[in-house]
Amino acid sequence: MGKSTIRTVCKVDFDRPASEQPYLHNRWHPDIPFAGTIKDGETVKIECLDWTGGQIKNDDSADDVKNVDLTKVHYLSGPFEIEGAAPGDLLLVEIMDVQPFEDRPWGFTGVFDRRNGGGFLDEIYPSAAKAIWDFEGIYCTSRHIPHVKFAGLIHPGILGCAPSAELLETWNKREAELIAANKLDRDVALPPQPLSCHAGSADRELAEKIGREGARTIPGRPEHGGNCDIKNLSRGSKVFLPVHVPGAKFSVGDLHFSQGDGEISFCGAIEMAGIITINFQVIKNGMAGLGLRSPVYIPGPVEPQFGPGRYIYFEGFSVDEAGRQHYMDVTVAYRQATLRCIEYLRRFGYSDYQAYLLLSCAPVQGHVAGVVDIPNACTTLGLPMDIFDFDISPLAALDATAEGETGKGGRDMGRCAFESGRTEGEVRSDAGKKGRVSFGGGLAYRE
Amino acid sequence: MGKSTIRTVCKVDFDRPASEQPYLHNRWHPDIPFAGTIKDGETVKIECLDWTGGQIKNDDSADDVKNVDLTKVHYLSGPFEIEGAAPGDLLLVEIMDVQPFEDRPWGFTGVFDRRNGGGFLDEIYPSAAKAIWDFEGIYCTSRHIPHVKFAGLIHPGILGCAPSAELLETWNKREAELIAANKLDRDVALPPQPLSCHAGSADRELAEKIGREGARTIPGRPEHGGNCDIKNLSRGSKVFLPVHVPGAKFSVGDLHFSQGDGEISFCGAIEMAGIITINFQVIKNGMAGLGLRSPVYIPGPVEPQFGPGRYIYFEGFSVDEAGRQHYMDVTVAYRQATLRCIEYLRRFGYSDYQAYLLLSCAPVQGHVAGVVDIPNACTTLGLPMDIFDFDISPLAALDATAEGETGKGGRDMGRCAFESGRTEGEVRSDAGKKGRVSFGGGLAYRE
Amino acid sequence: MGKSTIRTVCKVDFDRPASEQPYLHNRWHPDIPFAGTIKDGETVKIECLDWTGGQIKNDDSADDVKNVDLTKVHYLSGPFEIEGAAPGDLLLVEIMDVQPFEDRPWGFTGVFDRRNGGGFLDEIYPSAAKAIWDFEGIYCTSRHIPHVKFAGLIHPGILGCAPSAELLETWNKREAELIAANKLDRDVALPPQPLSCHAGSADRELAEKIGREGARTIPGRPEHGGNCDIKNLSRGSKVFLPVHVPGAKFSVGDLHFSQGDGEISFCGAIEMAGIITINFQVIKNGMAGLGLRSPVYIPGPVEPQFGPGRYIYFEGFSVDEAGRQHYMDVTVAYRQATLRCIEYLRRFGYSDYQAYLLLSCAPVQGHVAGVVDIPNACTTLGLPMDIFDFDISPLAALDATAEGETGKGGRDMGRCAFESGRTEGEVRSDAGKKGRVSFGGGLAYRE
Amino acid sequence: MGKSTIRTVCKVDFDRPASEQPYLHNRWHPDIPFAGTIKDGETVKIECLDWTGGQIKNDDSADDVKNVDLTKVHYLSGPFEIEGAAPGDLLLVEIMDVQPFEDRPWGFTGVFDRRNGGGFLDEIYPSAAKAIWDFEGIYCTSRHIPHVKFAGLIHPGILGCAPSAELLETWNKREAELIAANKLDRDVALPPQPLSCHAGSADRELAEKIGREGARTIPGRPEHGGNCDIKNLSRGSKVFLPVHVPGAKFSVGDLHFSQGDGEISFCGAIEMAGIITINFQVIKNGMAGLGLRSPVYIPGPVEPQFGPGRYIYFEGFSVDEAGRQHYMDVTVAYRQATLRCIEYLRRFGYSDYQAYLLLSCAPVQGHVAGVVDIPNACTTLGLPMDIFDFDISPLAALDATAEGETGKGGRDMGRCAFESGRTEGEVRSDAGKKGRVSFGGGLAYRE
Repeated sequence: MGKSTIRTVCKVDFDRPASEQPYLHNRWHPDIPFAGTIKDGETVKIECLDWTGGQIKNDDSADDVKNVDLTKVHYLSGPFEIEGAAPGDLLLVEIMDVQPFEDRPWGFTGVFDRRNGGGFLDEIYPSAAKAIWDFEGIYCTSRHIPHVKFAGLIHPGILGCAPSAELLETWNKREAELIAANKLDRDVALPPQPLSCHAGSADRELAEKIGREGARTIPGRPEHGGNCDIKNLSRGSKVFLPVHVPGAKFSVGDLHFSQGDGEISFCGAIEMAGIITINFQVIKNGMAGLGLRSPVYIPGPVEPQFGPGRYIYFEGFSVDEAGRQHYMDVTVAYRQATLRCIEYLRRFGYSDYQAYLLLSCAPVQGHVAGVVDIPNACTTLGLPMDIFDFDISPLAALDATAEGETGKGGRDMGRCAFESGRTEGEVRSDAGKKGRVSFGGGLAYRE
Repeated sequence: MGKSTIRTVCKVDFDRPASEQPYLHNRWHPDIPFAGTIKDGETVKIECLDWTGGQIKNDDSADDVKNVDLTKVHYLSGPFEIEGAAPGDLLLVEIMDVQPFEDRPWGFTGVFDRRNGGGFLDEIYPSAAKAIWDFEGIYCTSRHIPHVKFAGLIHPGILGCAPSAELLETWNKREAELIAANKLDRDVALPPQPLSCHAGSADRELAEKIGREGARTIPGRPEHGGNCDIKNLSRGSKVFLPVHVPGAKFSVGDLHFSQGDGEISFCGAIEMAGIITINFQVIKNGMAGLGLRSPVYIPGPVEPQFGPGRYIYFEGFSVDEAGRQHYMDVTVAYRQATLRCIEYLRRFGYSDYQAYLLLSCAPVQGHVAGVVDIPNACTTLGLPMDIFDFDISPLAALDATAEGETGKGGRDMGRCAFESGRTEGEVRSDAGKKGRVSFGGGLAYRE
Repeated sequence: MGKSTIRTVCKVDFDRPASEQPYLHNRWHPDIPFAGTIKDGETVKIECLDWTGGQIKNDDSADDVKNVDLTKVHYLSGPFEIEGAAPGDLLLVEIMDVQPFEDRPWGFTGVFDRRNGGGFLDEIYPSAAKAIWDFEGIYCTSRHIPHVKFAGLIHPGILGCAPSAELLETWNKREAELIAANKLDRDVALPPQPLSCHAGSADRELAEKIGREGARTIPGRPEHGGNCDIKNLSRGSKVFLPVHVPGAKFSVGDLHFSQGDGEISFCGAIEMAGIITINFQVIKNGMAGLGLRSPVYIPGPVEPQFGPGRYIYFEGFSVDEAGRQHYMDVTVAYRQATLRCIEYLRRFGYSDYQAYLLLSCAPVQGHVAGVVDIPNACTTLGLPMDIFDFDISPLAALDATAEGETGKGGRDMGRCAFESGRTEGEVRSDAGKKGRVSFGGGLAYRE
Repeated sequence: MGKSTIRTVCKVDFDRPASEQPYLHNRWHPDIPFAGTIKDGETVKIECLDWTGGQIKNDDSADDVKNVDLTKVHYLSGPFEIEGAAPGDLLLVEIMDVQPFEDRPWGFTGVFDRRNGGGFLDEIYPSAAKAIWDFEGIYCTSRHIPHVKFAGLIHPGILGCAPSAELLETWNKREAELIAANKLDRDVALPPQPLSCHAGSADRELAEKIGREGARTIPGRPEHGGNCDIKNLSRGSKVFLPVHVPGAKFSVGDLHFSQGDGEISFCGAIEMAGIITINFQVIKNGMAGLGLRSPVYIPGPVEPQFGPGRYIYFEGFSVDEAGRQHYMDVTVAYRQATLRCIEYLRRFGYSDYQAYLLLSCAPVQGHVAGVVDIPNACTTLGLPMDIFDFDISPLAALDATAEGETGKGGRDMGRCAFESGRTEGEVRSDAGKKGRVSFGGGLAYRE
């Protein structure tokens, strides 16, 4: 009489390579075969691997992060046929829940090596590092970043519907133009890549086509969302997704137990495997009806809430760390805000890498404050004080400083995981050896 | 026995040109004479002009905005001597209140003409426009943007301490380098400018020096804050400001009844004249103690609160309006989010200029969502639904669309103020005549 | 190296009577044997039956509610030994999570028959009624109360440590005095009751003793908390519980998916079976250290949040429904606030019983507003507007009224479950046949 | 072209007795002449005296509180004619702002002497006491309760429309019945009282009639609201008030800078003189349209917000301080919650009278938790931690206790104001001499 247990439409297998599981795939392409069918109006559970497909271990070495194979990531669950969905419709996706697996109550945050992935601050912090997070209900803690506990703002990093062939062509063309114009000594985008392409249950011929044409999953893209990494797209949120192909071909993955605005260390959220519960509704002709060119969403009601007066906000302007003035560059400005916060956390005894990891995954608020006062864009980064088990307010920081030369308040902050055999001192000295360009943004591209 | 009435340290005069009032000034320079003295620990009231020094009128024409003299803006109140403050200290500024003048219960939001000021979207919206806002207690409404009412997130756009001579030199040098390297057909920064310089009570010789050397007030700058335009630096906030000169030389001005993240139309907040009540405390040697290189602040407890589920969030990626791919450019991405929101508001009958004005001044949330998924930065812009007196949720928007060809729900949305004699149609057609570069950010600079 | 999966210390069995499961019990008594041991500092999972031990079915009849056996309720999980806890200590209990069983995604809210249990408004609503709620992730909906969906404020109704023998004697004595003084035609408290006593794994002799002496679980009691039914004691909350016996003998049960302030229909929360995850810490000598005579708690950060302006508040004063003036009686005043809200919801087509059920379980805010303005206490009840899928604001209510004679906005509100064979009309007519006294409070007792 | 300055419809005069000011009155009666006319849709400012009409001084003695003349209180501003309002309509009152007078930036909280006014805990705290609060913008502090600062939740204690003659008769009749039945040694309600009656601009004959018939202003009453003392009916709130007489005859007064739920010390809010800005709209036939029997309101968006995890909640049950069991008595239960909080604050060095004053006026949350678990009602009182400038969390309290015998953390908590010549020790010893009955509620009435 009542509703029955919620149906699980995709189960993942931890004992089998991700590349062999037919309900997973790691490209955006209209021809990847359906992994299942979901009714209009139905709520289902979808299991997901973590975004590295299980490459990262729950241990105290960052060797796995350093050597991660970045061609083997973002195994998404799907694509699912949503009954009745057609191009021009909107798919209203309501995220009813996201949970880790009961027998895998942990996740990880990583800093990639600058030569293998990098991150927003890789010029300054080029070495691999890792923090493991343990989950207990709504909360997480890390042996690698002591004295911190916070409630997860749990969400999927990636969700979206497959592009049409035309849209895929648009993507590939515009990204190829960027790649062609690149004069940096780093990748600014990645073209289709047959290597390690996983096309779900496609046969070999189709899989090869998908490998040649399929869009990489790393960037989010305006027309469908994809890897948007929006921390507040959490439990209870409703997102309106454009539909580009018959049946929608909805995919989801890259679950995050928590993330800060910017996800700055790239492998920056608390990455986890888990289960997402989603309700689907098709809104016929919704794209035209709403005139949507990108997804919109409405957050859910259960975000962790601290009160506005429980954040410390760090200001960042578009003057870079070398003192060079940039013109209205929000990317540069946000990098400064993150650096100011890392410097601040040093006073309590955290290492820079611990702070970098923490800002990536804790629910920090990154705001665009002003983008019109030439030449300086202004951003703010808000750090919630209540995730620490001691007082990190500025007045307490002054007291801590006054207490001794270390300014560290006598707490043992331990260390995060580094590459085997490297000491924190060695890692730190790397910070001086900056390369020429940094990961993040317009700064790099323009040189 | 009790405390007495709060002392007002600066009164402004609406019947006299700002340039003749000795307690005002419009440059950052260490030599501008003190306008008064405030005790360490004291709370005072400071009156401020609006940022245009009264150039904008409470009427229905945008001629004043179009023809605004931008050399005569940002008349700040001060600089004040804070007793005991010395270089290396921090000034803890607590904003106890901000209020409009009782007999001037109104403010304005403007879109500058692209040839005289411009703004974040001036390529698309090049014409001058204006909205007048009436204040009734905590709320504001505008005859130029009907069906909207919201509580002010009232704050100063500018506050900071004077730079030292060395710091001023640093500023001038790094901005000059940017100006020298500029290949755009627009200003990317402005050098010191003797014209219309107001150096407070300085004598002529000193005033000339200040005119030659003084830093313009438009940009915020990392070392002191200044024109940071942070909407949440509102009532009850505490901001920690670096002190660079003896006595601090604190100045404040550019009061905003409300502002959205980004203040996108440049004259974008609800600009007003008013009174700010501030408490000052000197923290000796605080800069070293906290290691602060930029201001930090803690917001107050009385921000308007809507609940997370009462926002519609628009996603913006770093693919520009011409479909061109940018590399990790948050500025471009945020522009897309604002455009998506403007398009959305069209469905309810608002003109693009009304929406542009509204996003500049209503408390919209602009977040940096992801800055690591090459090549696309992702941003979000959150529009609070409860500032409208009708339902603007996506489902309501679909209903409105279905109701008729206009998709406007039958509401009369009036119009905002334009240049005299121009119709909305004429203004709209301007939108097609884009110039080569847009105001905002890395995009422009790199070309 | 990382933490392992969280240990489950108590499993319940749905195929066996609660009374036969040795890890459950339904009395407070110091001699009930330990059901297991938990380390100081440990986090464990504890499974719990619903408070009726499974008497209520997921169907559309309220026969089970009408005929519920109230001697067979409140089967608590425990009591657990917390290592190191001793009388005088505090037990710091942190609620890491509460979840329904995955294969039982539903709960119920009931109105007891006035002759078998009753409730806060049983004089007016004497008949049995029921609503079944389906859970999908954080949300619940009911086929018996359409057009409502809300996120659970999930919590345990009961948690506490066993009383000492002395404390138990105090309880029994003071409640016996109340019973002895009772002149009402209804029970005001219940003495120890051997019938259906379940004393966990006690042998027969001990079980009989516990049946003679053990305190009933219905009332919360100041010295240990117990059945406090505090809706905000939800996920992430920390509660400090007095310890009265060696090992603490902690028990927990009566899980609620959601509850309104007051839990007014008695079986009023969304009652469910489920799993609670708890962390335990012993604070030595904490009772004296804090001087605690009753538990205190600090709520968690993930409560559903609506924004203050998204509630309609109903005022209630201590003038009863017959127009009689009471002296400063908050109980009477709160009853009036609930009645005002029920009347209000009628306008949208809900039946009184549906509204009564809804106010019991939805997260309504019940506040003591004023308790000093003789003779009228004032209370308020806040109803969150965003749990409805249509607009229930007063202006919308006026529109709905104007639309037609029914004033019901054309929505089909269905009906809640009643006793088999009874129509809503029959149930309604019962409402007129009031008894002499009502359930709630001082009003009754004094007559 | 724009709106003009807001009209002030009532000015109060601090140099003249309240009883001689024709725009004030201190009775509810349909015949009190109009004090002015307000248009439907208009926003006006209304000045108000503090509720004692200026009897309480800004000094350090509680003599004025002890000897207050309680026949000369609650001078309300009005009654105003709202154009077009007629019996059966609703008056939609939107509170646009409440502010203290700029030259009177202070207020007071008092504990009345038990023989002259009393309060919720007067049995335990029978002596007069006082705290003066200084206002600086949104914040208040008191020299009598150090280490506390909080933002005002500013609101009117009293607002409502005049009763009709029939309604007035109902009030007088039902309160007379309560008075007639009273067997306590204290007043449970007060009949009409000609002494010190102020009937506005009524002539002598009419004034005498009003003195004989007019309802006292102390109690709020369900049919019109009146002295409801709802702390969240603050800035931005909309309240729907029943209209009983032609022109509505709206009155307002008793402004509070802040108040805790319950306003427990009776003179318990931070009482102040000030200015309220209100918008009025008439909703024709709204009473029938909404079926309203008491006011409803929707709070505004700018309440101070702390985050749920920043409150300590104290539980209170209906077992009184003598250990006696009461039946479902929320009044008794709430009294216990307040006592638990007072006991807690002792550990930090506050005196009981300081704590009693503080709980009366700080924004504490008083919730009805459970009202169905016979015989114990459960209430909770939430104390915001962030109003203190030191850590009052339970763990900090334990540390403070451990630090020394005083358990007071070494802070000088000063003292609140008492009757001249009495020491705190003398006042404290009074606490032992309890009278037979307490102020609050059903407890007293029933004996």
